[in-house]
Amino acid sequence: MPEAKKPNPARRNERSRHAILDAARELIREVGYAKVSIEAIAARAGVGKQTIYRWWPSKGAVVFDSFLALSGNPEEGITLPDTGDIEADLKLVMRATAAEFADPDFEAPIRALNSEIISDSGLAAQYREKLARPVDDAKKARLRAAQQAGQLASDADLDLVLEVLYAPLYQRWLHRSGPLTAEYADALVDITLRAFRP
Amino acid sequence: MPEAKKPNPARRNERSRHAILDAARELIREVGYAKVSIEAIAARAGVGKQTIYRWWPSKGAVVFDSFLALSGNPEEGITLPDTGDIEADLKLVMRATAAEFADPDFEAPIRALNSEIISDSGLAAQYREKLARPVDDAKKARLRAAQQAGQLASDADLDLVLEVLYAPLYQRWLHRSGPLTAEYADALVDITLRAFRP
Repeated sequence: MPEAKKPNPARRNERSRHAILDAARELIREVGYAKVSIEAIAARAGVGKQTIYRWWPSKGAVVFDSFLALSGNPEEGITLPDTGDIEADLKLVMRATAAEFADPDFEAPIRALNSEIISDSGLAAQYREKLARPVDDAKKARLRAAQQAGQLASDADLDLVLEVLYAPLYQRWLHRSGPLTAEYADALVDITLRAFRP
Repeated sequence: MPEAKKPNPARRNERSRHAILDAARELIREVGYAKVSIEAIAARAGVGKQTIYRWWPSKGAVVFDSFLALSGNPEEGITLPDTGDIEADLKLVMRATAAEFADPDFEAPIRALNSEIISDSGLAAQYREKLARPVDDAKKARLRAAQQAGQLASDADLDLVLEVLYAPLYQRWLHRSGPLTAEYADALVDITLRAFRP
């Protein structure tokens, strides 16, 4: 993100940036990722196309930032809660995740993105690198602390731990095959800790 | 499926049915589910549109049957192996599932279908009813036998067991986020049995 030298341009940039990200999310929800164009995002945001290209190299990049903006940019560093109690911390995170996926405002653009990711391996790679990996790294840091505290098996494969914890919720959401409740979030944490306890 | 009264029409019907299902799968791989039409399937199969409508009520129905034909129709009854050893039986099934998902011929149409299922809740419901539920019922019957044999907790939620067993593999396949090997299949079985042991 370019640094503006004076307050007013900075504020204007920030407003434009928010307008662009909001427009991207709205359009994806309305017409689907495949049909969204940089032109349409610019028109909806009330900015020129060049304003978008000044900050983002591609449609994929601006769309990703529009998702990242929803929950904070993982590249700016996210950390998971660490109270010392892995069960309580994971339940807090998983309940929030379940609530997010159950929220129509949040889930509609993510659903559109997921549908594209599945058929577009390039977009899938971008998703993994820009969104999934930074978040997974933060989660793994928390799991590593739990290993050191003797709450998780020291030889547990942390990628597998994350899959067992999150993939059931993800699949249930994708296929709309069951409720995404706090109880379900808790059950996934209990099962995962049971499977990977020392 | 209509019963033909004489051998020749029955053979002709069977040939037409196979040609239609093959055409549906080919077209889905080539152009994606959204762009496949009954007309295109009929043309590719060398049959009239009315032949398709005589046997299937909709595009969704013929497409589903084309997937079901790949691995046998679950509505005709599937059963999981039962040697009495739940670990060995699940590893056999999970290794086969991993190999299927890793096979480009098998996975391409299923990927196209999954991409559609995610954005189309009607298709998702049809998928659950026609494909997922009969298969899940067969798997749950095997898990129930394991519960009776004291190999799985008697109070285990079998829907959750299936999610923990399959969803990580499914997500890894969808996002191409890791290898789908026999070792991975075995690890998922080990973890699931550990999580749900009595």
